Amino acid sequence: MRRTEIIVSSHSDFCFGVQRALNIAKEALKKNRIVYSVGPIIHNPQVVSEFSREGLKIINDVKEICALRAKGKSKKINLLIPSHGISPEVLRKNRIAFIDTTCPLVERVQRIVRDLSRKGYFIIIVGDKKHPEVRGLAGIAGKNFRVLKNKREAKAFNFPQGASAPAEKKLKRIALISQTTASVSNFKEILSEIAKKDFKELVSFNTICKNTIDRQSEAQRIARRVEAMIVIGGKNSANTSKLAKACRKINKNTCHIETREDLKTEFLKGKKSIGIATGASTPPYAIKEVVERIRRNDI
Amino acid sequence: MRRTEIIVSSHSDFCFGVQRALNIAKEALKKNRIVYSVGPIIHNPQVVSEFSREGLKIINDVKEICALRAKGKSKKINLLIPSHGISPEVLRKNRIAFIDTTCPLVERVQRIVRDLSRKGYFIIIVGDKKHPEVRGLAGIAGKNFRVLKNKREAKAFNFPQGASAPAEKKLKRIALISQTTASVSNFKEILSEIAKKDFKELVSFNTICKNTIDRQSEAQRIARRVEAMIVIGGKNSANTSKLAKACRKINKNTCHIETREDLKTEFLKGKKSIGIATGASTPPYAIKEVVERIRRNDI
Repeated sequence: MRRTEIIVSSHSDFCFGVQRALNIAKEALKKNRIVYSVGPIIHNPQVVSEFSREGLKIINDVKEICALRAKGKSKKINLLIPSHGISPEVLRKNRIAFIDTTCPLVERVQRIVRDLSRKGYFIIIVGDKKHPEVRGLAGIAGKNFRVLKNKREAKAFNFPQGASAPAEKKLKRIALISQTTASVSNFKEILSEIAKKDFKELVSFNTICKNTIDRQSEAQRIARRVEAMIVIGGKNSANTSKLAKACRKINKNTCHIETREDLKTEFLKGKKSIGIATGASTPPYAIKEVVERIRRNDI
Repeated sequence: MRRTEIIVSSHSDFCFGVQRALNIAKEALKKNRIVYSVGPIIHNPQVVSEFSREGLKIINDVKEICALRAKGKSKKINLLIPSHGISPEVLRKNRIAFIDTTCPLVERVQRIVRDLSRKGYFIIIVGDKKHPEVRGLAGIAGKNFRVLKNKREAKAFNFPQGASAPAEKKLKRIALISQTTASVSNFKEILSEIAKKDFKELVSFNTICKNTIDRQSEAQRIARRVEAMIVIGGKNSANTSKLAKACRKINKNTCHIETREDLKTEFLKGKKSIGIATGASTPPYAIKEVVERIRRNDI
């Protein structure tokens, strides 16, 4: 019998921010029977399910908290801000107390955006406008901002024109920051396009977190050496999706799965070497399960 | 007889900085018999010749002043800093008093460079390392700087590595500024290349002066409409050389001349329309002379 060679990325633990958020949530659940989270605390459905069983309830909007409060249940409400952060303006407006699990690296980007916004820069956020981190940053940026996803959008970008454009925009001072879990190559492509625009000043902060960068480069290194690559993590996880995309660029035989159940026998068939990489919010036990699944296929 | 159509650029006066420098020099020559200038006061040999006749002497290095001073002639020395500025460090070191004609827009770039250098940025100066303005900026930048001329040099650029690299460089904070008389498209190409590098922070100031930008775009607009283009100005003038290059990109029939004497009859032969553009340091009478030369050809 031939055994498939399995190479697991050395960057396969929860990232610092995810681990910290889970620890805070665990403590909160020890003290309280129910804790509300604005959206999933991290982007891994399996981990979120575990926390749901312990009493973590997910709501989609802060307004739901206001509704509960209106029903006189305010004393029982423990609100938790997930690791991706939310716009503090939303909380301030609604005067809601909260338990904060926002990743300190996301908080750093929030501080940079707040500072740039005060200085009158037009802010470009590189990322996905539907992602909670980006929505939080957009809330802080005020009115003068735009979210750009890729090179194509960057090429088409123009400063808002006409009478409705605020005076600051006329100064043409652009600032560029990135979602912490963006792809480095995509960020550089976008900056490179923006550099060609008409501006007086351009400030750019590469705010992609080191864990995302290391995870991507290590996964790509493995993808180069193996016949097939498995990326494990939430389908709603930005860093996992980008990890899968980065690996696929190098190795066409890449699949993105959430759990071992998603893994097809056909995919494993005849592969002499398989690489495994995980997202920042993928629980470490997921690797063990996938390895077992590959080993069962060997028999 | 057919008359050649002549279109003269509406941006054909001395720029503000050049006019100001000449006014200051005139005043200084009224008060003193001899004034020394470190390099040509502006980059137009014909204008410099006129001032030489009035008593303006050009020296190549501040050291020549020190030599004169050593001979006991210090009381008679009136030193003039030309419009492109020089590194103030050179003057400070030699404790030399001076009359300053540095263009206020160049001074602004000097202030930006001084500020960036203090904050520990690695400074990239877009320009020609032999140009007095760039040499002045380099003197202010300290040790952590590099002058880049074109896209090719920008592509090859890397942060200095190894033990000899100062600690600040490890932070990978890059700042980019430009010689005030650079080409806008070249500046953008260089920035676009630098944007692809590995950095934490990139700050870029488009310090090309508005007069340079307007002069280039107006000359290019004319070059598109005419059969031939004449660019008048010093061969040692950065903005004039770039003006000629920008016109040549659009109209192959472009020639760069200093005076009407450089104009060949062959070049004028059979041309139905000719455009004229001048550099920021070209005296307005040069246009009149060239127009007369074209008209003589018409007869």
